[in-house]
Amino acid sequence: MKKVALITMVLISATSLLAQDALRANAARLMTRELEASKAYETLEYLSDDIGQRLSGSKNAEAAILWSVERFRSWGIDVHTEKVIVPHWVRGEEYATLPSQMDQKIVVTALGGSVATPANGITAEVIELDSYEQLKAQGDKVRGKIVVWNNPMDLNLVRSGRGFEAYRFAVEFRGSGASKAAEYGALASLVRSVGSASLRTPHTGALKYEDNQPKIPAGAMTVEDSLLIHRLLAKGEKVIMHLVLTPQTLPPVESANVVAEIRGSTTPDEVVVLGGHLDSWDLGTGAIDDGGGVAQVMDAMRVIKESGLKPRRTIRCVLFMNEENGLAGGKQYAADHKDELAKHVAAIETDSGSAAPAGFRTTLDGAARKNFEQTVAGVFGRIGAARFETAKNTGADISPLTDAGVTGFSLEPDSLHYFDYHHTPADTLDKIDPKELAQDSAAIVALTYVLADMPPAR
Amino acid sequence: MKKVALITMVLISATSLLAQDALRANAARLMTRELEASKAYETLEYLSDDIGQRLSGSKNAEAAILWSVERFRSWGIDVHTEKVIVPHWVRGEEYATLPSQMDQKIVVTALGGSVATPANGITAEVIELDSYEQLKAQGDKVRGKIVVWNNPMDLNLVRSGRGFEAYRFAVEFRGSGASKAAEYGALASLVRSVGSASLRTPHTGALKYEDNQPKIPAGAMTVEDSLLIHRLLAKGEKVIMHLVLTPQTLPPVESANVVAEIRGSTTPDEVVVLGGHLDSWDLGTGAIDDGGGVAQVMDAMRVIKESGLKPRRTIRCVLFMNEENGLAGGKQYAADHKDELAKHVAAIETDSGSAAPAGFRTTLDGAARKNFEQTVAGVFGRIGAARFETAKNTGADISPLTDAGVTGFSLEPDSLHYFDYHHTPADTLDKIDPKELAQDSAAIVALTYVLADMPPAR
Repeated sequence: MKKVALITMVLISATSLLAQDALRANAARLMTRELEASKAYETLEYLSDDIGQRLSGSKNAEAAILWSVERFRSWGIDVHTEKVIVPHWVRGEEYATLPSQMDQKIVVTALGGSVATPANGITAEVIELDSYEQLKAQGDKVRGKIVVWNNPMDLNLVRSGRGFEAYRFAVEFRGSGASKAAEYGALASLVRSVGSASLRTPHTGALKYEDNQPKIPAGAMTVEDSLLIHRLLAKGEKVIMHLVLTPQTLPPVESANVVAEIRGSTTPDEVVVLGGHLDSWDLGTGAIDDGGGVAQVMDAMRVIKESGLKPRRTIRCVLFMNEENGLAGGKQYAADHKDELAKHVAAIETDSGSAAPAGFRTTLDGAARKNFEQTVAGVFGRIGAARFETAKNTGADISPLTDAGVTGFSLEPDSLHYFDYHHTPADTLDKIDPKELAQDSAAIVALTYVLADMPPAR
Repeated sequence: MKKVALITMVLISATSLLAQDALRANAARLMTRELEASKAYETLEYLSDDIGQRLSGSKNAEAAILWSVERFRSWGIDVHTEKVIVPHWVRGEEYATLPSQMDQKIVVTALGGSVATPANGITAEVIELDSYEQLKAQGDKVRGKIVVWNNPMDLNLVRSGRGFEAYRFAVEFRGSGASKAAEYGALASLVRSVGSASLRTPHTGALKYEDNQPKIPAGAMTVEDSLLIHRLLAKGEKVIMHLVLTPQTLPPVESANVVAEIRGSTTPDEVVVLGGHLDSWDLGTGAIDDGGGVAQVMDAMRVIKESGLKPRRTIRCVLFMNEENGLAGGKQYAADHKDELAKHVAAIETDSGSAAPAGFRTTLDGAARKNFEQTVAGVFGRIGAARFETAKNTGADISPLTDAGVTGFSLEPDSLHYFDYHHTPADTLDKIDPKELAQDSAAIVALTYVLADMPPAR
C-alpha cells in the first residue's frame, strides 16, 4: 500500500498560490452553477416519487439502475454498470398485540434480514432489558421469552449535532441484540426504534446474526410501544405478546453499481471517486437515505460536465447498491478495482442526508488536513460548509477504500432532524428542502473538482 | 323550555358577596386538593395502557365501562350504567399502492363507518379535488375514479390557537366528501389526513353517508402520500391506485353510559352534568381523545366526594359512550332524562385534550357571562385558566342538552399540539404531561363545585 501513500501526498503538498487561486475560482464557479441552476431536486423527485423504495433485489432498485444510467447518458456522461450480487430480503406481514392487556396493538416492523416467526406467530412473555450485563444477569429468565431492548437514543447528543454518535450507541442492540438474546434462549428480539422523533413511527434497519447462535425473529417497536411495555412492567404486570413477522429471505440476485466517469485530461489513471447509495430501506421512499446523496453526486457530475472544465484526474461517480443490508456494492467496487486503488486520490461519500451542509469529515489529519483547508480556504464558507473534521469513518460504501488507505471525505449536512425520518415510512421527498439540497450538491461539486484538479505533488 | 330559562337564571343572578367568598374559598380548596394529590394520571394510565383503544362495540369499550364503574365505587361514589345501543364498526385490512408508479405504497386508513372495497380491492385512476366547486366542474371526469381530496389543515390557524376552527374547515371533506364524490360516480374517496403533524401518520375519523347516494369506500391518506399524489399529477402523470379497505359494519350492540352521582344536599333535583367520552378511535389508545377528559371528570368527582363538601345540587358525572362515531350516548342521555332537563343547571364537557388549561367556552353570553366571571373571579387565574369565551358549541356529547337550553361549559386546554395526535396511532399516554392533566382536573373540579353550590337566584 506504499503507492497509495505516495498518491495521497498530492493532497498534502503545498500547492502554489497561483494554482490555488485558479482552483478556487473554478470551484467557486462550479458552485455558482449548481446553486443557480441545480437539477438535484428534479433528479431526487423522480427517484423518490416515481421509483420509490429501492431495497436491494426489488424491481424498484433495478428500475433505479436503468433510470440513473439513462440520466447520466442524457447529460453526455460515460456510464456503465458493474455487477453486484445482493441479498433479496422481502418484508411480509408484521403486527403484534398484547393478549395480557386486552389485545392492544403494538406497532412493530421487521429488521432487515430477520427470519420469520411461524405464520400464526409467537406468543410469549416479554422481558425488558437495556444492556448485555442485564441480559447476563437475567440469565435463564430470558429462555422462552420475547426480549425487548429499551435503549433510547440520546436526544441531548442529537441536539448537540452529534446525532450519528447517538445513533451508534443505540443501534448496537438493533444490530446484535437478536443473537445475544438467542444465546440465552429468547424466542424473539425487539428493539426500541432508534430515532429522534415518533408519531408511533417504526424505524427499521439491518441486523447481524452471529453464525453460532440460533436465528430468532427480530423487529423494532415504536418508541410509544416501548414506553407502554416499560410502564406495564414497571407496574408489576405480566406482559404477554403475540408477534407475527413473516419476512422472507429469497435467493441472492444479480444487481449492479452504476459507474459514471469524466475522464481526466492529463492523468486519467488517477481517480477521484464520489458516491452515494442507490438502494434504500423499503418503508419510506429513501428520499433522505440516500436519494438525496444520489441526486447530489449526479448533479455534481452534470455541472462539471456542462462547465467544460477538464480536470486533470478522472472523476468517477459510483451509485452503490446494497449499502443498507450488506454493503455488497461497496465491497465489490473495492474488489473489482483493487489494482487501481493505489491511484485513487480520494473518495467522497454523501450519505448523511440533504439538510443544509455544515462541512466535511475527512481521513486527512494534522498538517495534511491543514494544508488542504488552506488550499480550499474561502470556497465553502459562502454555503456554511467550511468545517473539516478528522474522522476514521467517512461513509460505509467507501470504507473498503479508506481501509485500503485512500483518503476519504464525507459531506456532513446538519443532522438535527436526520434521525426523525431515517429508516422510517416518513423518509419521503417532502422532508427535503430544494435549497438545502442544492447547497449540498454545490459543496460536493466544489470538493470533487478541487480533488480532481489539484496540481500534482512537487 | 321556559323552565330551563328560569333555572339558568341561577347563573346570572348576582350572588351575595359573602356567599361568593365562601364559594371561591371552597373552589380554591378543591383545586388545591386536586393539584397536590391528583389521581387523574393514574386513572388515565390504566384506561390508556391496560384497556387501550375503546371503539364503540369493542370488548375494550365494555371493559372500560366495567372498570370505571368499579373505580367510582372504590371511591364511595354512587354509580350506575344507562343502556345505549351503539354501532359496531370494525377495521379490516387497509393498504394501497400505485401500480402506475412502480407499486409504491400509499399509507391509508379507513374512515369510521366506511364500507369495504371488494376483498381484492379497487384499481382505478386517481383524480384530485379540493372543493365541491371543483367536483362539479370536473363533472363526468369523476366517474369510475378514486377521488382524493387534498385539503390541508390551516396551520396558521393552529398556531393562532384556533386549531378547532382549522379542523372544522378541513374535516368537511372527511365527513361529506364520499357521498359528494359518489354523486358523480366516483368509486372511492380518500381525504388528506386532517392533522397538524405527520411522520406518515394517518388520521381517522367518522364519515357520514347521505342516504340518497351510493356508499363508496372512504379513507384517509397521510399528508406525505397526499403530497406525493399531488406532485405526480402536477407533473402530468397518470396515477392509478390499487386500494384495499375491508372494514365491516356488524349489527349494533348494547353498550352504556356510565353515570356517577354525588347527590345535592339541599336541591338534589337540580343537576350539574360533567362529562367526557369513554369510547375512542381504534388506531391509538385514546389517551388524549378522550381518556384525559374521562380521567379529569372522574378525578373531579373523587376530590369532591373526599372533601366532605356537600354542594346544594346534584353533581352527575356521565362517561358518554360513542361520541366518535354516532353520538348515541349523548343523544340517549338527553332522551332518557328529558323530563329532568328543565332542572339541569349546567352541563360541562371536557373533550379537547389534556394540555395545560387555558379557560372555558360557555353558552353564557353578555351580562350572564360577566356575572358568572365575577362570581368566579380569582379562582382560575392561578392555573392560567381564567379565560371565558362565549360559544354555541361546548362539546358534542352535551350538545343535545345545550340545544335544549341547558347552559354549557367546555374546558379548553391549549390546542397547539392537539391535532398532531388526535385520531392517529400516536394518541398514546406518553403525549400527556401529568402536571397539565392535574391542572385540567383542577379547573373542572372548581367549575363543577361552583355551579353545584352557587346560591339560588333571589
